[in-house]
Amino acid sequence: MLSVIDKKEMKMFQWFFDEWKKAFHQIDPAIDIRVWPDIGDPKDIVLVIAWKYPPGELKKYPNLKCIASMGAGVDHILNDPERPQEIPVVRIVDKQMAIDITQYVVAATLYYVKRFDQWAADQQKKLWKKEPPFNLANYQIGIMGLGHLGQHAAKALNQLGLRVIGWSQSKKEIKNIECFDGKNLKKFLSKTNILICMLPLTKDTINILNEKNFNCLPQGAYLINVARGHLLVEKDLLSAIESGQIAGAYLDVFREEPLPQDHPFWTIPNIKITPHIASITNPKTAASQIIENYHRACRELNLINTVDLKRGY
Amino acid sequence: MLSVIDKKEMKMFQWFFDEWKKAFHQIDPAIDIRVWPDIGDPKDIVLVIAWKYPPGELKKYPNLKCIASMGAGVDHILNDPERPQEIPVVRIVDKQMAIDITQYVVAATLYYVKRFDQWAADQQKKLWKKEPPFNLANYQIGIMGLGHLGQHAAKALNQLGLRVIGWSQSKKEIKNIECFDGKNLKKFLSKTNILICMLPLTKDTINILNEKNFNCLPQGAYLINVARGHLLVEKDLLSAIESGQIAGAYLDVFREEPLPQDHPFWTIPNIKITPHIASITNPKTAASQIIENYHRACRELNLINTVDLKRGY
Repeated sequence: MLSVIDKKEMKMFQWFFDEWKKAFHQIDPAIDIRVWPDIGDPKDIVLVIAWKYPPGELKKYPNLKCIASMGAGVDHILNDPERPQEIPVVRIVDKQMAIDITQYVVAATLYYVKRFDQWAADQQKKLWKKEPPFNLANYQIGIMGLGHLGQHAAKALNQLGLRVIGWSQSKKEIKNIECFDGKNLKKFLSKTNILICMLPLTKDTINILNEKNFNCLPQGAYLINVARGHLLVEKDLLSAIESGQIAGAYLDVFREEPLPQDHPFWTIPNIKITPHIASITNPKTAASQIIENYHRACRELNLINTVDLKRGY
Repeated sequence: MLSVIDKKEMKMFQWFFDEWKKAFHQIDPAIDIRVWPDIGDPKDIVLVIAWKYPPGELKKYPNLKCIASMGAGVDHILNDPERPQEIPVVRIVDKQMAIDITQYVVAATLYYVKRFDQWAADQQKKLWKKEPPFNLANYQIGIMGLGHLGQHAAKALNQLGLRVIGWSQSKKEIKNIECFDGKNLKKFLSKTNILICMLPLTKDTINILNEKNFNCLPQGAYLINVARGHLLVEKDLLSAIESGQIAGAYLDVFREEPLPQDHPFWTIPNIKITPHIASITNPKTAASQIIENYHRACRELNLINTVDLKRGY
């Protein structure tokens, strides 16, 4: 067993890394955990759990049987051109992650539709000014990506009295939620006032949040991206905000993270930045599925939470 | 029929007032609506719908059979010492109001526990700094007041994965929510990290958010008040925030509204002000129950949504 973490990430993430080690040992104190780069004999390594890591690292382990992502996404692993292609990749599927990302998405959505930003600006001016609320009867929240996390968020928003529609590659059936399939993206966007992106990053979804698609939204739509930075063409968002086509955005993910100091997003009043915290894997609840896969890998059994390497999620 | 609105309120509220008239006429174009002060012969008036109004106004109508509040609360009516005591008082009970106030409470709660304020402050400094999220497993949301609105909010917060407890005069039974009764206020407060006040304003609840009760909360608790301003001893909140006993507050209601220009709340960074918008009656959905009570009052039938004048809610 082994845990590989890119050194740059480790510095930002020490508390997170310590949590993983503690969580593994709590489940199985006897398990042999090797922390990269001190991995001993590469032949001993059966399972690697990784977030960012040096490309090519994974081909050094001749007995590797499972590559585990530290999160729900696996694009960082699948994008490694030197990854041993025959080794199965697994991801974290955790109810707590669905709860966390839903809480983020609900907070960002309600903060916007309940005009909290305006109240905060009014407070600065000591201004007491009631306004009619957004007319939510005609307001639709559109979720892109209806996997485990997307469906959880869609249902929660709907239960709060909001109108929710959804879009995914293959059509889903969800109670109270009008669903659109891959071909009907334009139709979905034309009915969406708040666009929430919860898609996996694949060759089909990269750059999907672009000028052409923004122009399919009703004017003044709002964007929330909690999925991956490379889904968004950042300069297209800047011009859409400038033109008023997009009213503003809550962004948790970026093409480059940490967001570079000179990035224009930092200072645009209608763009809210959070540092990729919408859904952080909780090692306490996620460690058991890694240990489970470790034992399965040792015994050459089928793994759980495997990724379809062709679809990329 | 008649609608009485205090003139000062009318100026701030013109859109709201127009909505009521439109909504009544949409249901029954024939209904005779008289707008104060142009009420014609006071003998014609059967039902008054009122928010703030000049004390004593209501005793001028010899055939009055129903006093209707424009909102869920009735304290502004019950506190009129010259109100004719024998006339029943009704209030608005509207599913949409429960949805609205729940959305506010959920937004304020999640904004705080998901640290959005911190991310906003970090953005000002172009600072990318991940932090472990609040450990919500040990974090409890305590709702004071488990009427129609309080229960709705409690269930919604619980469905979002938060731990919720509740307190009300008479003990309630709600699935997944530990409930405390009137006598166990201290115990309830000792387990509450975010205190959400949704109580009616009565002689028993006035000033209940005070220093003594704040001191029963765990240190650094957070306060959300969406009920009535007179439930909160404002100077006690100021000292509790100063001492750190209370970390901050989202306040929608105040002892004096609009909040006076020289009020210290405006400028305390940990206090967020909203101008009494958490739950605004929607005349479109609420008008029908007023019309229903008007017809019942004319025929001397039992009214709906009546208030227990002894309890005060």
